[in-house]
Amino acid sequence: MNTFYSYEHLYQFTYSIFTSIGCSVTDAETATKTLLSADLRGIDSHGVARLSGYVRLWEANRINATPNIKIVHETPSTAVVDGDAGLGLVVAPFAMHVAIEKAKNAGTGWVSVCNTNHFGIAGYHAMMALQHDMIGMAMTNASALVAPTFSIERMLGTNPIAVAIPACEQPPFVADFATTTAANGKLEILQRKNAEAPLGWVQDKEGNASTDANELKKGGALLPLGSDREHGSHKGYALGSIVDIFSAVLSGASYGPWAPPFPAYVPMPQNMPGVGLGHFFGAMRIDAFRPAAAFKEHMDNWITRFRNATPAPGCERVLIPGDPEREMEAIRIKEGIPVVQSVVEDLVKVGKQFNIQF
Amino acid sequence: MNTFYSYEHLYQFTYSIFTSIGCSVTDAETATKTLLSADLRGIDSHGVARLSGYVRLWEANRINATPNIKIVHETPSTAVVDGDAGLGLVVAPFAMHVAIEKAKNAGTGWVSVCNTNHFGIAGYHAMMALQHDMIGMAMTNASALVAPTFSIERMLGTNPIAVAIPACEQPPFVADFATTTAANGKLEILQRKNAEAPLGWVQDKEGNASTDANELKKGGALLPLGSDREHGSHKGYALGSIVDIFSAVLSGASYGPWAPPFPAYVPMPQNMPGVGLGHFFGAMRIDAFRPAAAFKEHMDNWITRFRNATPAPGCERVLIPGDPEREMEAIRIKEGIPVVQSVVEDLVKVGKQFNIQF
Repeated sequence: MNTFYSYEHLYQFTYSIFTSIGCSVTDAETATKTLLSADLRGIDSHGVARLSGYVRLWEANRINATPNIKIVHETPSTAVVDGDAGLGLVVAPFAMHVAIEKAKNAGTGWVSVCNTNHFGIAGYHAMMALQHDMIGMAMTNASALVAPTFSIERMLGTNPIAVAIPACEQPPFVADFATTTAANGKLEILQRKNAEAPLGWVQDKEGNASTDANELKKGGALLPLGSDREHGSHKGYALGSIVDIFSAVLSGASYGPWAPPFPAYVPMPQNMPGVGLGHFFGAMRIDAFRPAAAFKEHMDNWITRFRNATPAPGCERVLIPGDPEREMEAIRIKEGIPVVQSVVEDLVKVGKQFNIQF
Repeated sequence: MNTFYSYEHLYQFTYSIFTSIGCSVTDAETATKTLLSADLRGIDSHGVARLSGYVRLWEANRINATPNIKIVHETPSTAVVDGDAGLGLVVAPFAMHVAIEKAKNAGTGWVSVCNTNHFGIAGYHAMMALQHDMIGMAMTNASALVAPTFSIERMLGTNPIAVAIPACEQPPFVADFATTTAANGKLEILQRKNAEAPLGWVQDKEGNASTDANELKKGGALLPLGSDREHGSHKGYALGSIVDIFSAVLSGASYGPWAPPFPAYVPMPQNMPGVGLGHFFGAMRIDAFRPAAAFKEHMDNWITRFRNATPAPGCERVLIPGDPEREMEAIRIKEGIPVVQSVVEDLVKVGKQFNIQF
């Protein structure tokens, strides 16, 4: 059911599609690297599987392939970036770069972005800070699929948070997670398998607990991290809200239920209070707090101690955030990236549109 | 079983205790206000119920009543504060003030704190930013009670995160939550009632799911937000870890399982890698991103839209983070603060020690 493709094959194809829709060589390179970092890291829902989705948004005039991305407001440690409706895959690295430059001078840099689109995986952007001995943070709002605690209405996206923290000998700590119990991509995998979802991932349109992986298509909603009130869903709801406000209310993007939907065939919400999606990025220079070498040595100690925490019976070991994705990347670089048949067909189709063979 | 006391009564008593252990008038005022903000907001586990705990730490020479709190490193947007083993109730407002001052000049301010102690509720410190038209953030590490996903070992504290965001006509958005499924205080309430805990709050010392509210006394552990791997506990574990690293690894405090325990009778961990507990604070000036008036108007819109989201059947309404605590404060200012009998007895006892009547 899966076909394996080399990273280089997917890179060439994706790059050609982005240049075909009018992206500059530099932007196409950036967008391709950003998008495929998801496939390398095993987050298949956010990688090449979404390529045709971006093309459809471009066809619907919701993505500008030649954006004039610019800083519209700034202070020594902050900026607001207007993405000019560009690919989030290009706007986000631009904005993260601004955060890193700010941090070089002011110690930290914080950038809120409006008028942008989906940016791939949050972790990629957060990790840009690592090579500068900085902590990186990235978050974004997204199409509303999540019901707040006590509600049946979809008000928030899966609004992910990523935090990347450098270490010395140890690989970095890289957390990257949706603020829901399960990301929508996990549900899509179950749908393909015709399998049930665990209780606590979704509710039906009346707000009842459900195991139907297709519940979203029937008016149901994803649940905030914590699943229900008794298990802390109000905390997941608060986290998703913070991401929404930092990304969109701070920047002037559209927030909450007004966030623009990713599928191009879904009509835009009425009376949008802002422009496009929103992102939020942060970069903190380690040596703005303590010498980088000392910090990274302690991070090695932190990571080693946690990795050696006593495992529960039946569990092999305790993982550090970022471990599974890094291990997956090593395998996929060597063995190739598996692409499911429906995505292969979709890529062949989008390739034909531009006379590019997949 | 509860006796009601006026805020003024608890204030005078608490203030007298803090001056009795040697705090300056100013520090005693700050510590009292900080501590009792928990009682006012309904977070009974973190308020006056902990007063004797702080006194015991002072007796054990683990709290310095006359600390020389100082900035030991800084850049335009960052600082590290050494709390000189002072009360966290005093060190934290000092550090949050530094963050706010940094934000006035640099747009944002970020302060990591070492050599400190428990700081009461995180929300109080985050809310200090509101009157300056800033977003406030506060977090702290704490004694290890939480097992990471796949582990039976207690490695993290309940490590809370608070974020306070100003609005205009609407009351502010104030999220303040432990990064566990349930805070330890919730378990203590069940213990007093001899009631069972919901599945997903704790595990026993072998890592099995448990409903025993006394599980922590038997070597068990609290669970990260998400409860188990299938419901996203790796996300709660990541969040608690980020709080630990920002608070303690960035500042030079003790982290993970080495965080100093709150009960004075619990021996300090061996080979501590840092000094005292750690906190982390942030302040972001709204108008470092967009005009404060425009932002606050959109926050009103955000809050109103979410408050009016369709409630689930049987639920009265959707809450905004901070609603329950604000409503509780209004009631308690009027009707007094309920104190359970065991805490009353504890306060009478600690009062007698200093010839102060409760």
